[in-house]
Amino acid sequence: MSEKIQTKFNVPETDRERIVIIGAGFAGLELAKRLAKSKYQVVLLDKNNYHQFQPLFYQVAMAGLEPSSIVFPLRKMFQRNKHIHIRVTEVDRVDTEKQQIFTDIGYLNYDYLVLAIGAYTNFFGNESIAKKSISMKSVGEALYLRNEILSDYEKALITPDYDERQKLLDIVVVGGGPTGVEVCGSLAEMKMHVIPKDYPELNVSEIEIHLLQGGDSLLAGMSENASQGALDYLTELGVKVQLNTRVEDYDGEKVYIKGGQTIPTHKMIWAAGIVGNKIKGLPESCIQRGNRLAVNDYLEVEGVHRIFAVGDVAVLKSDEYPYGHPQVAQVAIQMGRFLAKNFDRQSKGKLREKFAYSDKGSMATVGRNKAVVDLPGWKFKGAFAWLVWLFVHLFSLVGFRNRFIVFFNWIVNYLTYDQSLRLIIRPKQRKGKN
Amino acid sequence: MSEKIQTKFNVPETDRERIVIIGAGFAGLELAKRLAKSKYQVVLLDKNNYHQFQPLFYQVAMAGLEPSSIVFPLRKMFQRNKHIHIRVTEVDRVDTEKQQIFTDIGYLNYDYLVLAIGAYTNFFGNESIAKKSISMKSVGEALYLRNEILSDYEKALITPDYDERQKLLDIVVVGGGPTGVEVCGSLAEMKMHVIPKDYPELNVSEIEIHLLQGGDSLLAGMSENASQGALDYLTELGVKVQLNTRVEDYDGEKVYIKGGQTIPTHKMIWAAGIVGNKIKGLPESCIQRGNRLAVNDYLEVEGVHRIFAVGDVAVLKSDEYPYGHPQVAQVAIQMGRFLAKNFDRQSKGKLREKFAYSDKGSMATVGRNKAVVDLPGWKFKGAFAWLVWLFVHLFSLVGFRNRFIVFFNWIVNYLTYDQSLRLIIRPKQRKGKN
Repeated sequence: MSEKIQTKFNVPETDRERIVIIGAGFAGLELAKRLAKSKYQVVLLDKNNYHQFQPLFYQVAMAGLEPSSIVFPLRKMFQRNKHIHIRVTEVDRVDTEKQQIFTDIGYLNYDYLVLAIGAYTNFFGNESIAKKSISMKSVGEALYLRNEILSDYEKALITPDYDERQKLLDIVVVGGGPTGVEVCGSLAEMKMHVIPKDYPELNVSEIEIHLLQGGDSLLAGMSENASQGALDYLTELGVKVQLNTRVEDYDGEKVYIKGGQTIPTHKMIWAAGIVGNKIKGLPESCIQRGNRLAVNDYLEVEGVHRIFAVGDVAVLKSDEYPYGHPQVAQVAIQMGRFLAKNFDRQSKGKLREKFAYSDKGSMATVGRNKAVVDLPGWKFKGAFAWLVWLFVHLFSLVGFRNRFIVFFNWIVNYLTYDQSLRLIIRPKQRKGKN
Repeated sequence: MSEKIQTKFNVPETDRERIVIIGAGFAGLELAKRLAKSKYQVVLLDKNNYHQFQPLFYQVAMAGLEPSSIVFPLRKMFQRNKHIHIRVTEVDRVDTEKQQIFTDIGYLNYDYLVLAIGAYTNFFGNESIAKKSISMKSVGEALYLRNEILSDYEKALITPDYDERQKLLDIVVVGGGPTGVEVCGSLAEMKMHVIPKDYPELNVSEIEIHLLQGGDSLLAGMSENASQGALDYLTELGVKVQLNTRVEDYDGEKVYIKGGQTIPTHKMIWAAGIVGNKIKGLPESCIQRGNRLAVNDYLEVEGVHRIFAVGDVAVLKSDEYPYGHPQVAQVAIQMGRFLAKNFDRQSKGKLREKFAYSDKGSMATVGRNKAVVDLPGWKFKGAFAWLVWLFVHLFSLVGFRNRFIVFFNWIVNYLTYDQSLRLIIRPKQRKGKN
């Protein structure tokens, strides 16, 4: 991020009040969509030119879906809304006094600023883990993981040394939340159904999948029914789950576990927690645990003026949620929708409302006919839970084309037990690119 | 490529004769498929784990198709053939005496070696052009071009300086063969139908598409009817075509044309010719113009023993084709098929046959309802030619899933005038990857 560019960047000046939204994740996108026909000018900033559907990253990593099926171009979404302006950039800092943000393409004034900047992987300060492990917080990372897994199988084929081959074949996943559980489940299914056909020369029994969880249960935010269900399913699929197990270090060759155990592997997937993305210029007082920004019932960031926070980066403490709401898509979407309503009320001279979260339940999938669902008042698992999971995710995708292609892929995968996207593709670079 | 690894790489030793095929393009893949049930052991080597369908690279570059729709994993193709062994590697040299090839994963003996190593972009020795231009000879390059085009539109939006903005918006394509014509046609359609909707803040009339052709007609290998048709279609679409125009240099900022003309642009696509890929260890005598390998009627490389060449890299001179056959998919496929038959005859103690090419015609597309087709005895263009082009390419794709997804995308694109895959996705790297 360079501060050299001090010019204002090009957004039309109108007599509308300008809302600048930083981040087109679930919260930012929902807000922008709801404001599309409002009386405000909306400027939506994101470092990518697309919205990413995080819950299906793991299927991209496991070669079940293409990146393009679970992301959606922002410009296409807002083609008909001439008061929404999209800019692809990263925001460095905010000047809360002058009401300006500073980005790598210049600065911009705002009347209202909404921080929907989300969260990234929390490495808890361990630099070696940050460097050597693989995270799953962007579709680019998911694609990288796919390429690594497939390349390593190819290498394993021509590696006669048993120990070296083990490092290529074995995978350690750290973190027993939905991402860790879903990754392990689909790795296990790939091992069972795909590897024997694609790599008849590999000994499948040599492939070990480890899931390491710090706490004493999987899917910590869900019911005991769900935690136990996920554990049973994974065990059934041959995943080696270790609870109460803390990873202390990783050097790219070996995972070091508290207590002395080590696991040799070239691939450690780190899904052990998240921490809010940062933006400079906010008072220290509003920054809470995990870099989350304290907001009031109107989702205004505490201690500053005309700045809001929504989604994973926001923390609204209440009696019911003393540590804030869970950092999940549902909360983000509801916050985005709520804030849009309040902007609308404000523009019509009405009183604003206070945010209230309506918990619609949560779910996770382990594999074919194996999922767990917690609805308010109804907890279930198995084939029906899996179908519910499929349909909820299908209809949450943006765009008819994406839904159709994902649906088609799922049908083919279900019938053939085969993902068929096992391609190691990397965009080529021009060597001399200036 | 390292010569350090001098160990033999792991392929089962059997009493079958071993055919090593280098390259899984049209020729190598056709040969491998036809040999799948033969009495030989087949080792198929490619630097990628997939076959690429080159004729549709330009649609990947133009965000009309996903890479995964036009490539197919080799392992999946040969899942049921246990005498075919696939290795992902690059071959460095051949020892024609010892009958061994040397690769970056070790060496291997062969009984028969087939060079299906194809061709890459010919920069005619100009290093600056090689470094600064964009080529279209792999799906990775096509994806790179897509990312560049989209990123540059985003940059153009925030570039107030007219001259700087021109460099971002304008594109120069060099080479009036099928690739150049197809790229220009779809760029022009994107300019017409997509940019005004996606980038209402850009002035579409500022976007210029230049096609520079060294010779005096487009699609040099086709009929005059086709050449003129392509020229008319492109002109109609607003592409600035210049014939008899030779590019002398490119520095990343400006294209220098013989005679003094210059065109400022950040993106020059180089599709002006190809040159055969090289493999060390062959006698100089067999290497012909454009690095092609001279073969006899049995496709044996001249001057060496038990080595064959097929596809773009092979040159079989005859009265009808004094400079060899055209370097196109049809020839490659027929050569692969022919060679498989001869291996089969040989294994049955029959006499081998001589290669004869049956020209089935050629075609190129410019855009919606705009294509040119030359069949033996029938030359036509327009909407019907376009439909023929679509169906021929659709049915040439490998795999039901690919055909279905490409078909679906084409239908959606046709109805909506919109490709909808305008995503700038790059697989993320681990910083500390060792």
